[in-house]
Amino acid sequence: MKLNFSTISWENGIVKILDQTLLPNEETYKIIRTPSEMAEAIKSLRVRGAPLIGIAAAYGVALAAQNTNKKEEINSAIKLLESTRPTAYNLFYSLNRVKKVLANTTDLQAFIEEADKLKNEDEETCSKIGEYGVSLIPKNARCMTHCNAGALATAGIGTALAPIYLAKDKISNVFVPETRPVLQGARLTAWELTRNNIPATLICDSARGYVLSKGMVDLCIVGADRITRNGDTANKIGTYALAVLAKTNNVPFYVAAPYGTIDTSIASGNEIDIELRGEEEIKKIRGVEIAPKEIKAFNPAFDVTPAEYITAFITENGIQKPPFK
Amino acid sequence: MKLNFSTISWENGIVKILDQTLLPNEETYKIIRTPSEMAEAIKSLRVRGAPLIGIAAAYGVALAAQNTNKKEEINSAIKLLESTRPTAYNLFYSLNRVKKVLANTTDLQAFIEEADKLKNEDEETCSKIGEYGVSLIPKNARCMTHCNAGALATAGIGTALAPIYLAKDKISNVFVPETRPVLQGARLTAWELTRNNIPATLICDSARGYVLSKGMVDLCIVGADRITRNGDTANKIGTYALAVLAKTNNVPFYVAAPYGTIDTSIASGNEIDIELRGEEEIKKIRGVEIAPKEIKAFNPAFDVTPAEYITAFITENGIQKPPFK
Repeated sequence: MKLNFSTISWENGIVKILDQTLLPNEETYKIIRTPSEMAEAIKSLRVRGAPLIGIAAAYGVALAAQNTNKKEEINSAIKLLESTRPTAYNLFYSLNRVKKVLANTTDLQAFIEEADKLKNEDEETCSKIGEYGVSLIPKNARCMTHCNAGALATAGIGTALAPIYLAKDKISNVFVPETRPVLQGARLTAWELTRNNIPATLICDSARGYVLSKGMVDLCIVGADRITRNGDTANKIGTYALAVLAKTNNVPFYVAAPYGTIDTSIASGNEIDIELRGEEEIKKIRGVEIAPKEIKAFNPAFDVTPAEYITAFITENGIQKPPFK
Repeated sequence: MKLNFSTISWENGIVKILDQTLLPNEETYKIIRTPSEMAEAIKSLRVRGAPLIGIAAAYGVALAAQNTNKKEEINSAIKLLESTRPTAYNLFYSLNRVKKVLANTTDLQAFIEEADKLKNEDEETCSKIGEYGVSLIPKNARCMTHCNAGALATAGIGTALAPIYLAKDKISNVFVPETRPVLQGARLTAWELTRNNIPATLICDSARGYVLSKGMVDLCIVGADRITRNGDTANKIGTYALAVLAKTNNVPFYVAAPYGTIDTSIASGNEIDIELRGEEEIKKIRGVEIAPKEIKAFNPAFDVTPAEYITAFITENGIQKPPFK
């Protein structure tokens, strides 16, 4: 299955990314020419979504290798890209793969090939997650997701949304929580689902409990930024609340993610570093002030859902339960 | 205790309201001259907050009595005002009081007196709720509220925020969830707390779970729009989720409201009529589009928190537990 947009591509020495900060109003592709431009694009969420960040970072290193064959300089680019988002494990997974390339060569072609490989692997991973996930979706399914773990978060058909795309004829509705502060639900998930004719309904994050308590949802599927050995899962802020509310209302709660999202070096969620982002993301919405200047704001970008709230994990290796080895 | 603004006042034949849709950017007082202007002000949330709506509606009837002494016409004004917000019980409580006046007289002065009485009673109720609530607040308390059940929702010092104002010296922080879609937290609670020098921190609604799970909150206090005989409580959308998350994390969850919010004619929350508001409240924020035009939105304005999630109720009669008689 192919969708009608492309999140990232390498074209003759430049990287073209769909600038996700401009969605849903504009579908604009931005040209990235240097590792620092790529780092900016990742930090400012022009490219976002755990799997896509990993691929973008790998292409960012290729951009470095294009301008230098000094190992040290390529390594600085890797370090710069590593520093962009602390919570997404795919970023470190991808850059570790790139580091192995750098151990053997500084040849540009090798870096492009590794990034292309990561991209192709991601496309295939998404398809497999979708195929396994389809089995969990009943007829006339009413789903709920959170944030955007769709095609826009990957190079393929998404992670959480992959089963929904492949089971399209079985879907009667997808509840899309808007996902404050950055509104990935309202801007991105709403955009890609409506664009691909999947029935969807936007709600405020705080209406998720009401909708679940009224029996309007058969299953929840979300993505993940990092999964620990015991199954604790870091994902977009608000995921933990959704998981608790799903359990309270006996609605199954699935996490769909590439197996590479699992960080087996970490035993449990307490050890995950949670990215704190700026106050302005909360105090302004799309540039408009919504709060008094005097008030402080606290903006954790992720939270950790304990494994006990997760019915099962959907990876390219099948439907799985922790612990992971 | 007096705060430094006034939400509503009757002044020589007109009603002056603080237009809450313009906060926090502007503190503007709007003149209301007719019952239909008052109905518009209530529907469009210029005046909001369960207790304040009741008082505003009573003054709205006085505006009618100013222009007519026909019982029928005054009664139409009552009906119009009753139709503005289906969930807030204080609205019906106040208008029932006004109906009793109408049974005896159509004299303007009687309606002004009844509205003034409702206003004075509300001020006193708020103070008593505050006094009882203070006993529940520990030293260096870290509180969380939701929406705005503050001075802006009443004619006095608020309901949920009344204990916080009176225990000011014991408060180390109040977490203020922004309260999408209408942002009563970010715009109103943030405004009144910072204006009165109460330490406060704005968060997104979906960060409430994270903050509770990290042990950053000692108690939650919210208001109520309607409470049933068994203690089930209708309040701003997102209250139910907060109550579930508080219970999951062993944080006490209090509902502060005038005793008149209790609708003893209703046995449980299933019977409460939940107001559905327009899609545009979600799809636009302060006039800015945040979602694709094609997507549907679902906008329940309230939810019901089952009594089992509520540690206790704070009314002007003391700290209480259901059932209510």
